[in-house]
Amino acid sequence: MRVRNRPGAAEMLAARPEYVVADPEAWKGRWTERFGNNHPIQIEIGMGKGQFITGMAAANPEINYIGVEMQVSVISLALDKLVEAELPNLQLLHVDGSELTNYFSNSEIDQIYLNFSDPWPKKKHEKRRLTSPNFLAVDEEILRPAGEIHFKTDNQGLFEYSLSSFSKYGMTLQQVWLNLHESNYEGNIMTEYEEKFSKKGQPIYRVEARFPDKTK
Amino acid sequence: MRVRNRPGAAEMLAARPEYVVADPEAWKGRWTERFGNNHPIQIEIGMGKGQFITGMAAANPEINYIGVEMQVSVISLALDKLVEAELPNLQLLHVDGSELTNYFSNSEIDQIYLNFSDPWPKKKHEKRRLTSPNFLAVDEEILRPAGEIHFKTDNQGLFEYSLSSFSKYGMTLQQVWLNLHESNYEGNIMTEYEEKFSKKGQPIYRVEARFPDKTK
Repeated sequence: MRVRNRPGAAEMLAARPEYVVADPEAWKGRWTERFGNNHPIQIEIGMGKGQFITGMAAANPEINYIGVEMQVSVISLALDKLVEAELPNLQLLHVDGSELTNYFSNSEIDQIYLNFSDPWPKKKHEKRRLTSPNFLAVDEEILRPAGEIHFKTDNQGLFEYSLSSFSKYGMTLQQVWLNLHESNYEGNIMTEYEEKFSKKGQPIYRVEARFPDKTK
Repeated sequence: MRVRNRPGAAEMLAARPEYVVADPEAWKGRWTERFGNNHPIQIEIGMGKGQFITGMAAANPEINYIGVEMQVSVISLALDKLVEAELPNLQLLHVDGSELTNYFSNSEIDQIYLNFSDPWPKKKHEKRRLTSPNFLAVDEEILRPAGEIHFKTDNQGLFEYSLSSFSKYGMTLQQVWLNLHESNYEGNIMTEYEEKFSKKGQPIYRVEARFPDKTK
């Protein structure tokens, strides 16, 4: 996601250390301490402006959420929503999605969301896609055994690639939706992008993909 | 596929034993003898009126094909095409797709095609879908190790189900197409149904799914 540079965004993040984690390495393996409870922790990688994850956190107070986003102007827009909603079960992490093993220990995360990730359509950029094997390896490390990625996108090429990539990695496609908004799926929380683009009649694709349980 | 009953269809099949295999059990494990060569054998389960498999056989003389179809009136229409085209590498089998282990021995088949199979949309009819686990178990038995099913359909619900069914069975989705006719896939041979319905703008879905190599 690209947004216009927001003046003062970095200062806004620094001013809210209760929501934007200032020293994420320090919390590796200790996130239950930070949240003050043992609820499962779910993360969104590339949360963008935060409508999805703030909506999820508001709807599911018994689950802890962490929104990961690399771009300071973007994360500052998510922070606005969080300050407004005052959600104790949501934290924001201003870090790179490829380095998540620096911030989470093995099996610390219950579930991962990827929403409308950058498609990187050129073959030579395959490794930048968040559903490519190198990112899946990171995800698998921090997820619990048999943990899942829940992924939605409107990008046909990225979805085709991702289904095959998940499968080749050894993940199981638990369920697939080829037109989410016309399905009987309940409780969908839309991202800003999803709201805008689904109005154009573009189908939204969704998949729940599960890593193998290596403890078995 | 349902077609009108064709008077004399059974007699037409009986009159062409060189194309319509009269005693399929007798050829189990001996299909290379029947074809007179060691070329790989690929089958289409539910070949319908035969446009796909006669097209494939004409385009690939180095591959042997067997079209499987249960309905006598339907298979007689495929026979018309085969008699016209005189293809030595195509045989027709008038049997039920659930009983293929009666006609093929372990690993005798190189590849399986499923095209526009009956979607059986009701949950209670799941077991009748050709991509349900009971049929996949039969397919796996007759296919070579790491053999593949190549499946296309215009039915969104059946495709959603099948991607997940293949994956849960342990198959790998080698490649997925969400709009075959707008893709760069080359050499697509259309079925009668595909020709008719793709003109209405309905996307054609396709997947190549591979069974695990149990010999490894």
